Amino acid sequence: MKVGLIGFGVVGQGFAALISQKAADLSHRYGLEVQIAAVATRSRGSLYMPDGLNPESLLTAIKSGSLDTYPDQAGLRRGLSPLALASEGNFDVLIEVSPSNLKDGQPAISVIEAALHAGKHVVLANKGALVYGYESLSKTAVAAGKRLLFEASVMAGTPSLRLGMQSLAGCAISEARGIVNGTTNFILTQMGDGLSYADALAEAQRLGYAETDPTADVEGWDAAAKAVILGAALFGRQFAFDQMQVKGISQLTAQDIASAAAAGERWKLIARVTPEAAAVEPMRLPITHPLANVSGATNAITYTTDLMGDITLVGAGAGAVQTGFGLLSDLMEIHRETGI
Amino acid sequence: MKVGLIGFGVVGQGFAALISQKAADLSHRYGLEVQIAAVATRSRGSLYMPDGLNPESLLTAIKSGSLDTYPDQAGLRRGLSPLALASEGNFDVLIEVSPSNLKDGQPAISVIEAALHAGKHVVLANKGALVYGYESLSKTAVAAGKRLLFEASVMAGTPSLRLGMQSLAGCAISEARGIVNGTTNFILTQMGDGLSYADALAEAQRLGYAETDPTADVEGWDAAAKAVILGAALFGRQFAFDQMQVKGISQLTAQDIASAAAAGERWKLIARVTPEAAAVEPMRLPITHPLANVSGATNAITYTTDLMGDITLVGAGAGAVQTGFGLLSDLMEIHRETGI
Repeated sequence: MKVGLIGFGVVGQGFAALISQKAADLSHRYGLEVQIAAVATRSRGSLYMPDGLNPESLLTAIKSGSLDTYPDQAGLRRGLSPLALASEGNFDVLIEVSPSNLKDGQPAISVIEAALHAGKHVVLANKGALVYGYESLSKTAVAAGKRLLFEASVMAGTPSLRLGMQSLAGCAISEARGIVNGTTNFILTQMGDGLSYADALAEAQRLGYAETDPTADVEGWDAAAKAVILGAALFGRQFAFDQMQVKGISQLTAQDIASAAAAGERWKLIARVTPEAAAVEPMRLPITHPLANVSGATNAITYTTDLMGDITLVGAGAGAVQTGFGLLSDLMEIHRETGI
Repeated sequence: MKVGLIGFGVVGQGFAALISQKAADLSHRYGLEVQIAAVATRSRGSLYMPDGLNPESLLTAIKSGSLDTYPDQAGLRRGLSPLALASEGNFDVLIEVSPSNLKDGQPAISVIEAALHAGKHVVLANKGALVYGYESLSKTAVAAGKRLLFEASVMAGTPSLRLGMQSLAGCAISEARGIVNGTTNFILTQMGDGLSYADALAEAQRLGYAETDPTADVEGWDAAAKAVILGAALFGRQFAFDQMQVKGISQLTAQDIASAAAAGERWKLIARVTPEAAAVEPMRLPITHPLANVSGATNAITYTTDLMGDITLVGAGAGAVQTGFGLLSDLMEIHRETGI
C-alpha cells in the first residue's frame, strides 16, 4: 500500500515512526506493507519517490529543519505541491495531517477533493477539513468508489468512530456525549486538586498539553469541531460550526469547582451530539457518572443506543503515536476491504 | 442468511424478538435478511423449516411451554436433534445458545464441530463450549474456511471482543482486566451502600440478576470462563479452566467493604488475562481507577496496549436483547465478509 502524506508535523512524524517500528509485524500478521511514496509540507519541503521513501531518513531530515536535507537518489522529485501530489502522485492513499484550519478547512479540502477525484482513498486527522467539507467530500468519495476515513480526528487512535459506526451497527444511536478535549480535562482535573485556572493552564502549557495560545482548547472550539465530526460520522449530518452553541472553561473559577465538589459533583467540558443538534459546554456531573471519573488528559465518549443502553469508551485523546495509530487503523480497514 | 438456533431460552428468544423487530432496518440499511430455519431445544421440542420459521409464532409457542404448539405447515419437520440439524440442516449459520455447561462444554462442542464440518459458520454465546473446545473448534473452523464468532459470550453485545481483536488490530495487547460478571458487581455495589453480603445477594436474586443457586457467579466461575475466552480471543491461548486461580466474593464481609471505603478504595471482582496466565479474584481498587467506578450490573474491560496505553470499554454485560445483539453483530460481520 503506497501512501502520500500531506503535512509532516507531530502526527505525520508519529505515523512514519510507527510504520517503521511495526513494519515486520504488520506484514507478518496482517499482510499489510505500507510504503511512504510522498511527503509534502507547507514550508519545509516536499518529496516524491514512487518506489518509496525511507521513513528513518524522512525523520532525520525533518528534525534537521527541512525535507530538503533528505539524501538525493535516482527518481526522487522535490518541491511538488500538495495539490499536484494529490492529483498526479502514484499512490493508493492520501493521508491528510496538515495543521487543522478551523476557519474554512482549506487548503485541505481542495487537496482531499483532488485526491478522491484522482482515484485515491483518503485518511485524515485534519478536523477543519471535516468540519467544513464532510458533506461534499463524502459525496465525492461515494461517487469515486473510494474510502474517506477519519478515525484519528476524534480521540486520536482510540477507536471511537469505529465503535459507533461499525461495532454498534444494528443499534440505533440517539446521542453521543463525551470528553473529547484532553487539555481542558487536564486543567479541570488540576483545578479539582486545588489549582486556580491560571495555574492549571500554566501547568498544562509546561507539560505540552496546551499551546501558547490556548484559545481553541479552552474556549471549546476543538471539542466543537469533534462534535461536528461525530454528527457527520454517526448521523450523516453536517452541523454548521459557526452556529453551534459553544462554551469553554475559561470562565470557571476555583469557587465553581469547590461548589461542585461540595455537592458531590465535578465539572467536565462535555460535547453532546444528537441527530438534531451539537453543542459544547461545561457541565456538573455527579461523581458516580462514568464521565465524571475520566481524569487528566484522558478522553471518553458515551453512546446512548436503543439495544445496548449506554456504552462508554475511555482512552487517549492525543499524542503522536496515538494519533498515528488512528491513521494506521484506517489503513488496515482499507487493506481488509480492498486487499491493497 | 438462514440460521439455525440450538437452544431457545432467554437469549435465543431475545435474538428472535430482535430479528423480528429490526427486520426492516437490517434489510434497508445493511442488506441483511435473517431467516430462522431451525430451532432445537433439549426438552421443549425442535422445528425445522428450510423456507423459514415465523419468529412471532416461535415466541408464542415457546411461551406456551413447548415448540410442539407451533402451527403445522407444509414442509415443517419436528423433532430433529441438535446434532442432526447441525449436520444436515440447510442453513448458513448455526447459532449455539444452549445452556452453558462449565463441566465439559458438551453437548455444544459436538454440535458446533458437526456444523463446521457441514460447512456452516458458527456464532455462539455458549461459554462452556469455548472454555473446553476453543482450540479444537477454531482449528476446525479454519480448516473448513468458516467463521467461529462469539462476541456475545463476554459482556453480552457490548463489543469487547471486536474492540480487542479488530478495532485495536495493529496494537499489541499485553493484558486484559475487567469486571465481566454483573451479578457480583451488583452485589458489591449494594454492599458499598451498606447491605450485608446475604441481603445484597437476596436483592440480586429478587431482581433476577442472581440465580437461585448463585454459585457460578459468586464463586467467580462465570468470570473465570470469560477470562478463558478472552485469553483465546486475544492471545490464541486455551487456559485450563480447572487449573485457574479463581476466587469469588462470598467471603467478603461488610467490614472488608468498610475498610476499603475508609482507605478510598472499592472491592471489585477482577478477571485478569495475559499471554501467560488467567485468574479471577476480588481486588481493592482506588476510587480514581476507571474500573472502580463501574457500578451495579454494568461490566467493563480495560486493555493495556503498546501504542494506545489503556483503553476501557464500559457497557451492559447481560440481558436478553443485549446478548441477542451480540449474536446479531457476529451475523453482520459474516454478512460483510461473505455477502450472505
